[in-house]
Amino acid sequence: MKKFVFLLMVLLSSSAFASANSDKQQILSVLHQQQNAWNQGNIPGFMQGYWHSPKLRFTSGGQVSYGWQQAMNHYQAHYKNKAAMGKLLFDIKDVQLFGDHAVVFGHWQLNREKDQPQGYFTLVLAKLDGSWKITADHTSAARPAKH
Amino acid sequence: MKKFVFLLMVLLSSSAFASANSDKQQILSVLHQQQNAWNQGNIPGFMQGYWHSPKLRFTSGGQVSYGWQQAMNHYQAHYKNKAAMGKLLFDIKDVQLFGDHAVVFGHWQLNREKDQPQGYFTLVLAKLDGSWKITADHTSAARPAKH
Repeated sequence: MKKFVFLLMVLLSSSAFASANSDKQQILSVLHQQQNAWNQGNIPGFMQGYWHSPKLRFTSGGQVSYGWQQAMNHYQAHYKNKAAMGKLLFDIKDVQLFGDHAVVFGHWQLNREKDQPQGYFTLVLAKLDGSWKITADHTSAARPAKH
Repeated sequence: MKKFVFLLMVLLSSSAFASANSDKQQILSVLHQQQNAWNQGNIPGFMQGYWHSPKLRFTSGGQVSYGWQQAMNHYQAHYKNKAAMGKLLFDIKDVQLFGDHAVVFGHWQLNREKDQPQGYFTLVLAKLDGSWKITADHTSAARPAKH
């Protein structure tokens, strides 16, 4: 009986581990798909990583705005073409899983002909109907390096 | 029996609610104590809200640094006296509880004679040994308003 209980505990904990691992992989995949969509000039594809809700919170440049549509409009107004969009590179530094929520911290860089803005982001994600979506994004940019 | 189970469920859920409520109050209290310490010119008191660990993550001005001591040194170097520290005002917009972790989003403003910088912060907190501590801080400042 003890052996059975021990085996059951091993199975349960390894399945919890596999699930956490799989959640982490799914989150990384959402961000990877965002990066790919951006680099194909596909803003609606990039926006699929975000919670499609008026409650999506977007903090950038010391301002906050709410709403998926507002974020989409902002990106479409500020990135008119592929040259403006450049090549986006995410470097994920940390993923913290809290059940069906997660916090991701990472570095972003945009390689463009005219400049290479970069900075950090803190994302809150939620697992909604089985899919991880970004519900809050706090992005900040480093001051441009002096030349 | 059904009545008993129902009563038990009500008691359990109201105790879960009370606990969540109390956690939220404790988190708000940590931030309130930080604000008070800052406004008394007490940087070590302000720093008590942060995780005393080399892993504390501090993102500000598009840069990241790690460590409680580093954050303390940064504050002491940049805020030499009460005039430089000014009056800090936190406006907490959102507290999300995930068990023994939480994410807090809020607005900060520093009222000083020479300027009034302001912006937003996203904090990750953890309940460590029964006390809520900020483990990661992502702060960004709005560009100064044009006069």
